[in-house]
Amino acid sequence: MALGEFDLIERYFKRPSVSRALSPSRNTPHADVALGIGDDCALLQPRPGTQLAISSDMLVEGRHFFPDVDPATLGHKALAVNLSDLAACGAKPLAFTLALALPRVDEPWLAAFSRGLFALADAHGCTLIGGDTTQGPLNICITIFGEVPVVAGKSQALLRSGARASDDLYVSGTLGDARLALDALCGTIQLPAEVLAQARHRLEQPTPRVALGLALRGIATAAIDVSDGLLGDLGHILKASQCGATLDTSSAIQLIASRGIESWLSGRFDIEKKLQNQLNWVLAGGDDYELLFTAPASAQAAVMQAARSSATPVTRIGRMDAEIGLRLVDTNGQPVSGQFASFDHFA
Amino acid sequence: MALGEFDLIERYFKRPSVSRALSPSRNTPHADVALGIGDDCALLQPRPGTQLAISSDMLVEGRHFFPDVDPATLGHKALAVNLSDLAACGAKPLAFTLALALPRVDEPWLAAFSRGLFALADAHGCTLIGGDTTQGPLNICITIFGEVPVVAGKSQALLRSGARASDDLYVSGTLGDARLALDALCGTIQLPAEVLAQARHRLEQPTPRVALGLALRGIATAAIDVSDGLLGDLGHILKASQCGATLDTSSAIQLIASRGIESWLSGRFDIEKKLQNQLNWVLAGGDDYELLFTAPASAQAAVMQAARSSATPVTRIGRMDAEIGLRLVDTNGQPVSGQFASFDHFA
Repeated sequence: MALGEFDLIERYFKRPSVSRALSPSRNTPHADVALGIGDDCALLQPRPGTQLAISSDMLVEGRHFFPDVDPATLGHKALAVNLSDLAACGAKPLAFTLALALPRVDEPWLAAFSRGLFALADAHGCTLIGGDTTQGPLNICITIFGEVPVVAGKSQALLRSGARASDDLYVSGTLGDARLALDALCGTIQLPAEVLAQARHRLEQPTPRVALGLALRGIATAAIDVSDGLLGDLGHILKASQCGATLDTSSAIQLIASRGIESWLSGRFDIEKKLQNQLNWVLAGGDDYELLFTAPASAQAAVMQAARSSATPVTRIGRMDAEIGLRLVDTNGQPVSGQFASFDHFA
Repeated sequence: MALGEFDLIERYFKRPSVSRALSPSRNTPHADVALGIGDDCALLQPRPGTQLAISSDMLVEGRHFFPDVDPATLGHKALAVNLSDLAACGAKPLAFTLALALPRVDEPWLAAFSRGLFALADAHGCTLIGGDTTQGPLNICITIFGEVPVVAGKSQALLRSGARASDDLYVSGTLGDARLALDALCGTIQLPAEVLAQARHRLEQPTPRVALGLALRGIATAAIDVSDGLLGDLGHILKASQCGATLDTSSAIQLIASRGIESWLSGRFDIEKKLQNQLNWVLAGGDDYELLFTAPASAQAAVMQAARSSATPVTRIGRMDAEIGLRLVDTNGQPVSGQFASFDHFA
């Protein structure tokens, strides 16, 4: 017998109090969720002195993931990209809604998808409070809610608009691996199996930098998550903060995590083409979900302490300038040329 | 030149403060929206002593609307179905996010869609605070936020679970017209042009009963909006409230609004088949977006006052019973038989 819409929600997505039970280490009382799945609306009651940070992301088959993607990793990624937006605001995850269009009711698919989704949700103490399911081309839309304190009337949210000239520019973790995997899976390049496996993990199961975002509250002056590519997302900070930046490509180019890529590239391309390829993945890759942020030079020790306390590597890759525009330089401060296009969903 | 993702948002969806300016009569300060479109997250700051009511609905082409639907009415409907969820909770609309998958950037379509969307949003003082746009099969996912007061530690939200035996059962407005239009547009029945036009308006531009929902706070014991069909949605109240109901079909059958349907039906069917058809549209139609609610018999005058103050017709169509199950009766209290299937998105 076919599973109906309400049975589907009941079986795969309604978990009264289960989220708490599964993550005892994060078993803080969520007074915030006054009512979860099952009525016309969910009810959230934010704690006094807090704001709610809200973000929505829609994932579409063939655009954000391959039709044959493992549904468990898809469940992970659908929530991860939203958690990453909270991280970029320095918001503590609270809850999310899930709207899901499915071509058909495929129970093994739903079981794996919800397993991947809830594993990440539980790790962040983030409760599914409502949503919608319908028949249609596969589409996953999550809206996520996080908490940001307001101190002395001032929101502690990290915004894109707070960067100032002479601030240092930092990025967390590694860059370019997701794009490397995408190029390989699309057949543009051929990668050795072990390199592809590493890169593919980054593409399919990104790690939202929630702990770092929280640790950077009061330290970072501006932040964004790298989803469309480093240069494009840096451009959003420059525009919102009305300043420029100088980016040290010799620091950035080291940021690809996949081991073996260096020697594999060296065997295939001359040195200039190799650097160009590597730089392109790092600067314009997309789907990295690292945090790109700025902080005053005087806060360098605090930034490094935030990195340690959140167990998240952080690299300084440049500085903000009063002069509008972005300048790419090499290790000697000489200009680097090149065309790097960020990701646009309609390009 | 093709319009990119960010230009598209800038041109059609970013309206700093415009929403307020366009609706001076509702020009209340929204301290709630601390930050709108343009950063990783929006920031909402609910007023002290309030909860946030949250609902998500996803609309898919071919499932919720026809491919050739007027995009202005689609913009209206996408928000209306979400406002209807707030109405069913007695929540005051505050803000919403919009995630939109589009097959291509079609500027006239976007202009009309956003016009229809914002006309309804402005009428309810509801601000677009964020979202997502991507390429993909047409899909519209709105998550909406409303305000519910908490009085003496008790939420004033209308829930499905509060109905009690001997409560009266009411429905707002009219029922069945949307389904009548759907049947005609699908070619199942042929309607005279003027009947179809009336019914189609109800299908494509439903009126969310926000004012009635607000007026029913503290009066109604349970409420739901009729989206899947009266019987199915009544079933949700019965299940959540753990009681039964007796529904007077002779009251309900009068609720089709479309003028001329009565005589048109009489000319085509014998009396029994006519009643069966009419009852099916009313009881199992779907897409009505009326409020179905319960209130104690002692509150009848207050219900009627809420109906008047919100300028929304309300009809008593039955009463709640201690005995589990739903009983359909005619004007003499005799049982009415019939199969009425509510809408299931995977049936």
